[in-house]
Amino acid sequence: MADREYALQMHREWAGKISCEPKTKLSTREDLAVAYTPGVAEPCKDIAADPELAYAYTLKANTIAVVSDGSAVLGLGNIGPAAAMPVMEGKAALFKEFGGVNAFPICLDTQDADRIVETVKLLAPTFGGINLEDISAPRCFLIEERLKAELDIPVFHDDQHGTAIVVLCGVINALRITGKRAPACKVVVNGSGAAGIAIAKLLLLYGFTNVILCDSKGIVSSKSERLNDVKREMLKVTNLDDQAGTLADALMGADVFVGVSAPGAITAEMIAAMAADPIIFALANPIPEIYPADAKAAGARIAATGRSDFPNQVNNVIAFPGIFKGALEARASAITDDMKLAAARALADLVSDEELCEDFIMPDPFDPRAAQVVADAVRSCC
Amino acid sequence: MADREYALQMHREWAGKISCEPKTKLSTREDLAVAYTPGVAEPCKDIAADPELAYAYTLKANTIAVVSDGSAVLGLGNIGPAAAMPVMEGKAALFKEFGGVNAFPICLDTQDADRIVETVKLLAPTFGGINLEDISAPRCFLIEERLKAELDIPVFHDDQHGTAIVVLCGVINALRITGKRAPACKVVVNGSGAAGIAIAKLLLLYGFTNVILCDSKGIVSSKSERLNDVKREMLKVTNLDDQAGTLADALMGADVFVGVSAPGAITAEMIAAMAADPIIFALANPIPEIYPADAKAAGARIAATGRSDFPNQVNNVIAFPGIFKGALEARASAITDDMKLAAARALADLVSDEELCEDFIMPDPFDPRAAQVVADAVRSCC
Repeated sequence: MADREYALQMHREWAGKISCEPKTKLSTREDLAVAYTPGVAEPCKDIAADPELAYAYTLKANTIAVVSDGSAVLGLGNIGPAAAMPVMEGKAALFKEFGGVNAFPICLDTQDADRIVETVKLLAPTFGGINLEDISAPRCFLIEERLKAELDIPVFHDDQHGTAIVVLCGVINALRITGKRAPACKVVVNGSGAAGIAIAKLLLLYGFTNVILCDSKGIVSSKSERLNDVKREMLKVTNLDDQAGTLADALMGADVFVGVSAPGAITAEMIAAMAADPIIFALANPIPEIYPADAKAAGARIAATGRSDFPNQVNNVIAFPGIFKGALEARASAITDDMKLAAARALADLVSDEELCEDFIMPDPFDPRAAQVVADAVRSCC
Repeated sequence: MADREYALQMHREWAGKISCEPKTKLSTREDLAVAYTPGVAEPCKDIAADPELAYAYTLKANTIAVVSDGSAVLGLGNIGPAAAMPVMEGKAALFKEFGGVNAFPICLDTQDADRIVETVKLLAPTFGGINLEDISAPRCFLIEERLKAELDIPVFHDDQHGTAIVVLCGVINALRITGKRAPACKVVVNGSGAAGIAIAKLLLLYGFTNVILCDSKGIVSSKSERLNDVKREMLKVTNLDDQAGTLADALMGADVFVGVSAPGAITAEMIAAMAADPIIFALANPIPEIYPADAKAAGARIAATGRSDFPNQVNNVIAFPGIFKGALEARASAITDDMKLAAARALADLVSDEELCEDFIMPDPFDPRAAQVVADAVRSCC
């Protein structure tokens, strides 16, 4: 309760965690004559003649929007746009703190996918990139897909791809430790919302071939009830034997479990039935699918969570600031699959052979090198 | 040309005149636990329960959007949203510098009034107020009217109302000098775009009764060609004798000329035909309708322009920062006519009897007291 009161008190003192600061003084007529009239007309005229110059003369060069509709905020669910603002402000602050990227939080008063797409498109002249945040599945897939197709600035849904990049980084290093090889592994992703789908896709891109996706009803197969378009699409590349059954069925002989689901979703018995050296990512937050100690006791070789008070925290902050830092520096028009793979590999490489161990498979969230290596990886793909 | 190159060079160095700065450090786990997860969930939950708390916990408390479609930018005309950004960034910087108000510039990729209204409404959960900027007439009237009706945060089109407030301030003090009384004056407003209409309306609200509006074809009367809805509406309260004719006809015996029109629109002969002690606001920029020296030579008692290199500069910067500072402090849901009148009176009062003279009828644009007295005036109306 003390923590609650302290968080509220600090938020009241901040009254917004982002301020808009002029980069130049405007305290004399001379200042105004350059930054405002009449001098400001010069960059305006030049941009009117060549729109690309917006990247030279305006904040489009280094500023993104953090856009949400408040439909899937943290573990709080659909709390709406006004209530989502503190999270988006925090995210914007992290972009600046870790990546040097200016980010402005925008919460939209609609949860209609078409209207969100339309609005973000109309905002696009202002920004150099769009970070979508806390938009619920399956709308988030459609929204991101349409924006990627219709805009010429990078669009990135961090809940999907940021999470996927960091999970892949951890998985890569878990393979280094266990000596497992991706094409030989069986991977079970439990949770087929935004994060689960993106994780499965990125693992497949990396080279895993045997991936099974589960939802709260069990294995996603052609016999599943309530198959949506996205799950149906995923069946073309996952669960190639079209196995039906429970999560426990899926985990028999599996090498890797990635949970983006709910507390208690995986049990000690299920882990015991996995292949040798089980790799467990239990990312439900704040209460993981299984606590690391329990996973280890059941035979897990490696356990990761989303929490900062256990080893191996999967924290997107090692990825998203660098993703946009690199994309803006390179003036990339999109965040590509190659960039995501390169970012995950670069983050995995940050853990040296000497450091690498069961309890250290990912860079620390405060590793000051993370944003730069991710940005370099993104730029290397342009 | 040197000025042009310097303005471009500085804009290139700034690469955007506004940066998004975190108000708090995020460099430790403890920082993150308060400003981001898990602490951030507390204000989120509270706002979800009571949306008014957005004003306590988020940047809605002190942040506005500066919104444009780039359709009427400075004297450059319809240069589009990307090219309008340097102006909106400058405006945002002025809000912070002069009023302590955080302002973020947003240029929209549409010039359709309905889509602008729709988009701004969807942005509203984020912001505490909306400053519309450089949107061409007559769309600007419709857009502002609809947003005022449909939003519960203050909406203000500075090109209309900021200009009108500062002109009224100057007119009030011109009356102090000349001893003229508002109800006995004949006023001619030349230009019936955004600024002209708003100036005429505010002068009428103040107590002027004999106001004639002109456009590029002459006096706006029932016989005018190309009457739009706005001009037709204005005919109910201006030009009550329904006089037809030229600007020269209108100015015969007039006491006050306010030009928001074009260089050369008013001549020495026209001024000579005005009543005693003519008051001339020649606000076309950068080249006024008539230069002050020429106006004086023709008999003008008082001459004001929009330029900083002559006395009596009509500069909105003495009004708009204080308007939103006051509105946000009072959490006003709208900028009312009373607020605009109170702001103009408060600005006029800043010029003491000792200071007041033909060449000093308005506070200096850099008067550090202006924003505060305007903010106080706005709050006094709540």
